[in-house]
Amino acid sequence: MNRKTDTPVTVIGLGLMGRALAGAFLKAGHPTTVWNRTTSRADHLVAEGARLAPTVGDALKASPLTIICVTDYPAMRELLGASDGELDGKMLINLTSGDSAQARETAQWAEQRGAHYLDGAIMAIPSAIGTAEAVILHSGPRPDFEAHKPTLDALGTVTYLGADHGLASLYDVAGLAMMWSVLNAWLQGTALLRTAGVDAATYAPFARQIAAEVAGWLPGYAEQIDSGSFPAEVSALETDARAMAHLIEESEAVGVNAELPKLIKAMADRSIAAGHGGEQYPVLIEEFGKPRND
Amino acid sequence: MNRKTDTPVTVIGLGLMGRALAGAFLKAGHPTTVWNRTTSRADHLVAEGARLAPTVGDALKASPLTIICVTDYPAMRELLGASDGELDGKMLINLTSGDSAQARETAQWAEQRGAHYLDGAIMAIPSAIGTAEAVILHSGPRPDFEAHKPTLDALGTVTYLGADHGLASLYDVAGLAMMWSVLNAWLQGTALLRTAGVDAATYAPFARQIAAEVAGWLPGYAEQIDSGSFPAEVSALETDARAMAHLIEESEAVGVNAELPKLIKAMADRSIAAGHGGEQYPVLIEEFGKPRND
Ligand SMILES: NC(=O)c1ccc[n+]([C@@H]2O[C@H](COP(=O)([O-])OP(=O)(O)OC[C@H]3O[C@@H](n4cnc5c(N)ncnc54)[C@H](OP(=O)(O)O)[C@@H]3O)[C@@H](O)[C@H]2O)c1
Ligand SMILES: NC(=O)c1ccc[n+]([C@@H]2O[C@H](COP(=O)([O-])OP(=O)(O)OC[C@H]3O[C@@H](n4cnc5c(N)ncnc54)[C@H](OP(=O)(O)O)[C@@H]3O)[C@@H](O)[C@H]2O)c1
Repeated sequence: MNRKTDTPVTVIGLGLMGRALAGAFLKAGHPTTVWNRTTSRADHLVAEGARLAPTVGDALKASPLTIICVTDYPAMRELLGASDGELDGKMLINLTSGDSAQARETAQWAEQRGAHYLDGAIMAIPSAIGTAEAVILHSGPRPDFEAHKPTLDALGTVTYLGADHGLASLYDVAGLAMMWSVLNAWLQGTALLRTAGVDAATYAPFARQIAAEVAGWLPGYAEQIDSGSFPAEVSALETDARAMAHLIEESEAVGVNAELPKLIKAMADRSIAAGHGGEQYPVLIEEFGKPRND
Repeated sequence: MNRKTDTPVTVIGLGLMGRALAGAFLKAGHPTTVWNRTTSRADHLVAEGARLAPTVGDALKASPLTIICVTDYPAMRELLGASDGELDGKMLINLTSGDSAQARETAQWAEQRGAHYLDGAIMAIPSAIGTAEAVILHSGPRPDFEAHKPTLDALGTVTYLGADHGLASLYDVAGLAMMWSVLNAWLQGTALLRTAGVDAATYAPFARQIAAEVAGWLPGYAEQIDSGSFPAEVSALETDARAMAHLIEESEAVGVNAELPKLIKAMADRSIAAGHGGEQYPVLIEEFGKPRND
């Protein structure tokens, strides 16, 4: 990290996350200006050296770079709308959670007002901010990211994804889907094993190893998707579907939840019905790529 | 591996998998006897030095250790039933896929006939048999496993799980649930990112890293399950549910499948409705541990 610690920064929105962001900038030595609708939430930061701006316009004026992190995009647009004359020539980084369409719209809105705009997503909890564990994704013009990375480094592991402003949101939810899926599969297995008296701690290392191993297959499987060709080098979907039936039967027989096993099989069955039973698992991208009732 | 290569072994069932098993024993130097309903399937193995037994009874008599691997448990019981007098004093290892109840019943049936019995599950494809990549799980009396491990080592990475004969089947399906879940989450993410023109190869390393990282949390999360206490040290289920809503909204907005996101949220919502919104994710074990309509 090539940190720059004397650049002034503004943080707008001092909820749980905004306070953590402002705190990390302060700790790294940046002159930090803050603003929040409920002023009292700035008290602790002001005691630590932050400057409280009286208005949003003053907050924007105080620094070349403003980070905004509030509940959602409508709140963000409402709050900046009244002072949007101050955006001209400024760098605005929006770390509010939203979807890719909101990010792209907001980028247009901000650029029309003369601002440089990056959209970001925080893959971390507030207490991790300021450590390398906090991954913060950014998308938008690369030069804007590069110019401010030395300042952003104060927040954690900051990553650039690409020029499309929607990417941060897409990667964010994709990563969350992976997180919950690994956890749910582990819970499914833990529930199955508990019926035989195996405790969660005994099963966890096995689950961990399988997850890590399968994760290692992904780059290779990705090549099948990108080439659009799915030869059954390892196993055919039809063979997988028989093992999926075992998973459902076992779950039902021992009396645990079978919804996840059934969804796994339902998607494979649909792909088999579409003629892909002799192909390999990644051919399911065709099912994942379209809404259910297409 | 402390391989023993002069022990005679019998393999019953010469489908795709049985042929791979017999081939690995032959390659390791074991005197190998085989039997299959359709005799011609033994031809290649016989050419490589296997001895074809004329009957199932002769096959059992030929070796102290018999591995059986056929389509399912009913086929296995039907096929051994006529010669079950030959089981007395023999070691039988059943690598046929089935559920934990079938494994436990078959253990009783075999033990009543004087056999030592281990139940196993093969977490590998036939072409991996004979390499360290082929993980083969075993459950049943530990001394039986220890006694035959030097022979079984010819098949791959052989693992012992515990005395309950049902464990191999339970670990097997639990591992498969993890495998398909990691793949499905990756497909969900790949589908999302493709809407922004990101190819699968670009997204895969990101998915891989998240999966491996979350896998690392499992042993710690297991402690919450074993202690039955789920303090929200990292994040409360209620906060997670808001991010789950983003995942659903984003999937629907860009026109990809939303069934997996919806199942993720449905299970969390039920746990929240049951009063666990302020607790941490592993509290969902209560939902996974019971059938849907309980
Ligand atoms: N907390 C996390 O673990 C986490 C993790 C990753 C991402 N995020 C994202 O970070 C963002 C902020 O989360 P948070 O945890 O800080 O939320 P929070 O604690 O609920 O704080 C919400 C912030 O938004 C402000 N706000 C809401 N509506 C407003 C409006 N109409 N006008 C002006 N200000 C408004 C609030 O101001 P008042 O103080 O005046 O109410 C407060 O500063 C969200 O998009 C969240 O998804 C959070
Ligand atoms: N293939 C894999 O990738 C894989 C991976 C893990 C686990 N497994 C498990 O391994 C087992 C065998 O799989 P496979 O791939 O070898 O299947 P397969 O190629 O379909 O072979 C099935 C075998 O079972 C025999 N059989 C079926 N019904 C019989 C009966 N009533 N009496 C006598 N013999 C009977 C067949 O004999 P005939 O030759 O006379 O038909 C054949 O030897 C299954 O439980 C499977 O789930 C397979």
